Amino acid sequence: MSSRKENCYPIMHFAPDYGWLNDPNGLVYHDGIFELYYQSNPNGVEWDDMTWGHARSTDLIHWEELEPVLYPDENGMMYSGCGLRNDRGELGLPKDALLFPYTAAGFDEGLSNPYFTIRLAYSTDGGASLIKRGDKLLQEMAPDNRDPKVFWHEESKAYVLVLWIEKNDFGIFRSENMQNFELSQRITLEGGFECPDLFELPVIGDDGNVSEKRWVFWAADGMYFVGDFDGYKFTPTQDKKKAYFITTLPYAAQTWSGDPKGRVIQIPWLRTKCVYNQTTSTMGIPRELTLRKINGSYVIKHAIPEEITSRVQPVSELTKGESSYISKDSAIFLDLDNLSGSTVNLYASGENDPFVTLKYNDRTGAIGISDGKVTEFMFLGREHRDKATIIYDRGIIELTTGDDTILQMTDLPHLRSIECNRISFESGEGNLKVGMIY
Amino acid sequence: MSSRKENCYPIMHFAPDYGWLNDPNGLVYHDGIFELYYQSNPNGVEWDDMTWGHARSTDLIHWEELEPVLYPDENGMMYSGCGLRNDRGELGLPKDALLFPYTAAGFDEGLSNPYFTIRLAYSTDGGASLIKRGDKLLQEMAPDNRDPKVFWHEESKAYVLVLWIEKNDFGIFRSENMQNFELSQRITLEGGFECPDLFELPVIGDDGNVSEKRWVFWAADGMYFVGDFDGYKFTPTQDKKKAYFITTLPYAAQTWSGDPKGRVIQIPWLRTKCVYNQTTSTMGIPRELTLRKINGSYVIKHAIPEEITSRVQPVSELTKGESSYISKDSAIFLDLDNLSGSTVNLYASGENDPFVTLKYNDRTGAIGISDGKVTEFMFLGREHRDKATIIYDRGIIELTTGDDTILQMTDLPHLRSIECNRISFESGEGNLKVGMIY
Repeated sequence: MSSRKENCYPIMHFAPDYGWLNDPNGLVYHDGIFELYYQSNPNGVEWDDMTWGHARSTDLIHWEELEPVLYPDENGMMYSGCGLRNDRGELGLPKDALLFPYTAAGFDEGLSNPYFTIRLAYSTDGGASLIKRGDKLLQEMAPDNRDPKVFWHEESKAYVLVLWIEKNDFGIFRSENMQNFELSQRITLEGGFECPDLFELPVIGDDGNVSEKRWVFWAADGMYFVGDFDGYKFTPTQDKKKAYFITTLPYAAQTWSGDPKGRVIQIPWLRTKCVYNQTTSTMGIPRELTLRKINGSYVIKHAIPEEITSRVQPVSELTKGESSYISKDSAIFLDLDNLSGSTVNLYASGENDPFVTLKYNDRTGAIGISDGKVTEFMFLGREHRDKATIIYDRGIIELTTGDDTILQMTDLPHLRSIECNRISFESGEGNLKVGMIY
Repeated sequence: MSSRKENCYPIMHFAPDYGWLNDPNGLVYHDGIFELYYQSNPNGVEWDDMTWGHARSTDLIHWEELEPVLYPDENGMMYSGCGLRNDRGELGLPKDALLFPYTAAGFDEGLSNPYFTIRLAYSTDGGASLIKRGDKLLQEMAPDNRDPKVFWHEESKAYVLVLWIEKNDFGIFRSENMQNFELSQRITLEGGFECPDLFELPVIGDDGNVSEKRWVFWAADGMYFVGDFDGYKFTPTQDKKKAYFITTLPYAAQTWSGDPKGRVIQIPWLRTKCVYNQTTSTMGIPRELTLRKINGSYVIKHAIPEEITSRVQPVSELTKGESSYISKDSAIFLDLDNLSGSTVNLYASGENDPFVTLKYNDRTGAIGISDGKVTEFMFLGREHRDKATIIYDRGIIELTTGDDTILQMTDLPHLRSIECNRISFESGEGNLKVGMIY
């Protein structure tokens, strides 16, 4: 494993020491650990040689990178899949084993199978190493079918596997013993593509309590479908919606199985750029998903999980003209409560000019983020101008509206290696709450 | 009109002196001039106060910026529309008048009409100033309906107007006299959204000759539908396709009416970033569209028009280790004929380190574009690795595969003000043809 050669890594957005990263894979919680496997090219900064890389965290903030676990073989490169605990003791494996359905990306260049095949690996050492089983989980549906996501559906007593088949078509499969999954439904979800996920979310009412639960079918580009699921068939009950307002940075988000509090926590791949020929792309910040009913339709909320919020260190509450020093090794949390034309500057140690300026235009609802030469714009939207949270992490920015319904990310890769030492609230009314996490 | 304050403008990609730009509008050719109106905020670098800005060119390379022509009024902001010559002498206007159907974006904030309305402006001074007629061209179909594109359909003797209605729904309207357009077809084109265009393209056979013609229905995000059109109804005859492989930079492309050679020439908005708080976004390079039949389906080719190709000045043909000086005020054309692991460096005057390096990986088909810190990747695709053209214009890059079927753009805004003075072919086999345009 290479050491971190350049100062080009964000604080809380996971990036491997070296190489290319894309989809999160095999997300499973066990024994206090959130496992994070991912599509990786350990040999270069471009997409190639797809391997399952491996990292883990106990707090969803700090990620320890470990050795890769699945390498390409005679069945193809190792494409996306999921993870779950073997709580029911299937396949003659212990109950504390971890199961990893994955895609072997068969190409027609001398490999044994021209189809992508869906297979199983498992771990009996707590996820440190994965062993491939020889068998396939299901009969292939189409040459490029891929991205299995599996969970146990208690009500109908079966493992449910969702798979992308082709175009906008997905398959829902069932098995009672994690073998020989049988097709239960083939469904076209117009606008959906790749990396399906299927989960039940609580609907949070105006009083903050859970009023009901609804199922969500999720696809890679953030298109999601709210509906009913009985273990056999998913039936959308409202028009498709798209998460991630405006931005095209996040993709292929997956949820963890086995969260001890029963929460649905999701992490996306962020398509951040290659920096210093060292590392390409990062993971996003994990988010806890719930639903909220707005104007008669269900909308996903993307909240920061309490593991993270509870570790945000308050730094100061600034009013206009004030500034505050912060630790240069931290990601910055900004709580924007009054956004009338505010300007916030970030400074590197010993510098008189800010390396980045955030400027809110309360007429257009846009936040301009400028490094002095280039300005990016993020948008709160007309109905969400009052309150927002910004996380600034070494050039990666995540903006969330106060109600957590709109989440945007942007990447300023030229700022990746600049350490922020001071923050000032140049102009604007009200208070600017500053926190940091490290 | 402000002067060009900073050295932050590309050479051949149009950008206004100051302000925000989006969709091209009112594209019409007359008297040797390609008129280019566009969605503009002349008052700021963010989207707002939508106005029709105005530029024109005689060679599709150099654009002269003129005064804006349509300002917001009591019917709303001035949203997108098209342009055509009044060759048939409609509306009591001279035959050399220019007609401009446009969208008045009525909002419900104190304006006369809560619907977007489709109206007509015209010019009797060759496009320098536009006069709004009071009447509406058609009965509104939905609150946000917009983006009329109009042409005369000779076979069925009517003006045809295509309009975006809502969601993936478009309308085709007809009129014999440019007034009171009547709905002829409402069509759902799944995946299509905004800014429709409808045009007939020649299909170029393997022998280089036109073998047939096919109609194309185009939508803003580059989704296009090939099919039949009889003046009344459009019938798709193949699955939708998406132009612009991978990139999300281009949007809302529109074609010129009245090209003297009958060509279909299209220009997209490129969502390039705001530089120096001076200018946000540019236009792409105009492309001549034709069709090619590949594996049984029609695919759009995006060729550089002869106005531009005929003005490319050959500079040199470099082999490995050679370099060549070029004019610092030019856009650079690179003809890549043999791409086995080539590396090309661009240098600013007096600098020993390149400000940008283009590196082709012949294993993955990716071209990495690095400024030393950050690398972007563009992809030729497995079937197009042999030949490509790259245009480098002050940080804006357009990559086209040798057969013109794949077109990608990228924006490196931090390089916008760097003038290239020398180019070297560091490594790679074969010859690198270098040309420039200024």
